[in-house]
Amino acid sequence: MPQKVRIALDAMGGDVGASVVIPGAAISLTRHPDTEFLLFGDRALIAPQLDKHPALKAVSRVIHTDVAVSMHDKPSQALRRGRKTSSMWLAIEAVKKGEADVAVSAGNTGALMAMGRFCLRMLPGIERPAIAAIWPTARGDSVILDVGATIGGDAQHLKTLALMGSAMASVLFDLERPTVGLLNIGVEEMKGREEIREAAELLRNLDLPQLNFIGFVEGGGIGKGAADVIVTEGFSGNISIKVAEGTARQMTEFLRAALSRTWRAKIGYLLARNAFKALRDKLDPNKSNGGVFLGLNGIVVKSHGDATPDGFAYAVDVGYDMASYDLLTKINQMLNRDGSAFASAPTAQEAVS
Amino acid sequence: MPQKVRIALDAMGGDVGASVVIPGAAISLTRHPDTEFLLFGDRALIAPQLDKHPALKAVSRVIHTDVAVSMHDKPSQALRRGRKTSSMWLAIEAVKKGEADVAVSAGNTGALMAMGRFCLRMLPGIERPAIAAIWPTARGDSVILDVGATIGGDAQHLKTLALMGSAMASVLFDLERPTVGLLNIGVEEMKGREEIREAAELLRNLDLPQLNFIGFVEGGGIGKGAADVIVTEGFSGNISIKVAEGTARQMTEFLRAALSRTWRAKIGYLLARNAFKALRDKLDPNKSNGGVFLGLNGIVVKSHGDATPDGFAYAVDVGYDMASYDLLTKINQMLNRDGSAFASAPTAQEAVS
Repeated sequence: MPQKVRIALDAMGGDVGASVVIPGAAISLTRHPDTEFLLFGDRALIAPQLDKHPALKAVSRVIHTDVAVSMHDKPSQALRRGRKTSSMWLAIEAVKKGEADVAVSAGNTGALMAMGRFCLRMLPGIERPAIAAIWPTARGDSVILDVGATIGGDAQHLKTLALMGSAMASVLFDLERPTVGLLNIGVEEMKGREEIREAAELLRNLDLPQLNFIGFVEGGGIGKGAADVIVTEGFSGNISIKVAEGTARQMTEFLRAALSRTWRAKIGYLLARNAFKALRDKLDPNKSNGGVFLGLNGIVVKSHGDATPDGFAYAVDVGYDMASYDLLTKINQMLNRDGSAFASAPTAQEAVS
Repeated sequence: MPQKVRIALDAMGGDVGASVVIPGAAISLTRHPDTEFLLFGDRALIAPQLDKHPALKAVSRVIHTDVAVSMHDKPSQALRRGRKTSSMWLAIEAVKKGEADVAVSAGNTGALMAMGRFCLRMLPGIERPAIAAIWPTARGDSVILDVGATIGGDAQHLKTLALMGSAMASVLFDLERPTVGLLNIGVEEMKGREEIREAAELLRNLDLPQLNFIGFVEGGGIGKGAADVIVTEGFSGNISIKVAEGTARQMTEFLRAALSRTWRAKIGYLLARNAFKALRDKLDPNKSNGGVFLGLNGIVVKSHGDATPDGFAYAVDVGYDMASYDLLTKINQMLNRDGSAFASAPTAQEAVS
């Protein structure tokens, strides 16, 4: 029998904590029965939830702590208060100790990243972390990174993002050579920020058969699925994903308003209800929930703080995929095969503001 | 009788030229009968179109030239080939000579900006131009700038964008004190790029009663209408607007596919058809067509190259509004009242990469 995938959950993370985390884990378990869970948090809050999900209870171990990082703690506060004691820290530490393959938390992003860096440390050759997100496109899904871990960055940083993103997409989408594009304001070679053009040059000249660099992708190309991996620094990436989510939400609201305006429209809506349900499912932000922290020496997945149990289940699914296909090894292979990532890492650190 | 609004049109601009420009102008004329047009381009192509629109013909003068800037000309090529002779140049020059109040072109953006700068020059105190676009939101419309004229920029540049955008929104939306927000990756004060935090500080400290600065706006806030004016440098602005357009297009395609899948859905669609039409109208990118070049000593409006006659008509409408409410004077007032824009302009130019 193959080894089970061991997932450490911060059961206190997110806007509501255990009452979303536990049902979410139970949903993911039905999809991946070969999972085991370590649940970190307040036993008094976890136990009643677990009782409702006997199948989950059977494969879970609860590790009690009454320290929880709040959604409003600054990273420094979270480290000061919660290091070695909070549910968030303990979940990450389980990965470090080799007791879990991946940690999943819906807790606050800054604190999770700070604890991840502090506890797991960075991968050799990587100075700055990234968060990768999944973007539903017309052709399926794409990976976009960085969506907000690191603001700015030089060509070397963008190259590292490309390598890590490619490794993640190959694992997540089961592709040998996922296509990789650099986000830019035009597809012509002379356009855009200098570091982006330099990064394109670096990526074109890499002797790395797994990397399938296709050039620049514009903002409108992401949703078309122009590349499996969209690479950009954290400011543009964060703006992009939030604009896309905002636009989707806005359109859904327009549609709802338009369809409730007249009786004909209401009846039409009732008849087409299943079609709308399919559309909602397709666009449900819960279904692309799960930001993967890249660059750490261990896998940490971040769920939206306001995710529903379904949404949290997707984040757990992402963690499962990343762990069972061994994302970390894949990333290390990519970085090792491109030896230059190591040689020039200090330069990258010096050059960024 | 009040003076008419005089609009100079590059009748050769865009993917198809006169057969979109002329019908588009005719549509706009029905909404603003107090318009006069100068039509620059090939008389042989313009005349047959004008014959179909006698009302437009009656208020138009055709100025023949057989030189046209192509959609693929680089700015330098366009200037070399088309300076003083092309339909694009002549339309802009009509503004400079005071023969027109505004120029509208669907020609290529780079060439139009280069000719605008060369012919009209920049406003005193402004070193770098911007393009402002209109973003349909849940609360109405917002202005976003810069959507791609200038990449990067320091706090002073962002402040100038805020002043120009505020002037434009006050004219376009008839608001005394439009709200102005800086695009950022969080609403907290300590987040984001340094120049954005500095710009926030500058804007907070401005002694300018017309300016209603409300702080940072996230990517998801634009579509909610969090501010009447969204300020960002050209890279993020370009990515944002293209991501929003792309997401809207993608959702429309999902919806169409979902509604044609079953007979029930198809019948539902037929019943709700008017509701969908209202939705499409609301989201039609043609309806937010019209990028306004800011910072030039004259008003130039850019239409999408692939606009339909309806789309081009909206760009003409935008030009009409900008001219009839005297955007340029408003911008100059904003800049003059804030004397510091002049004093520190050279610094702005030096500091940007």
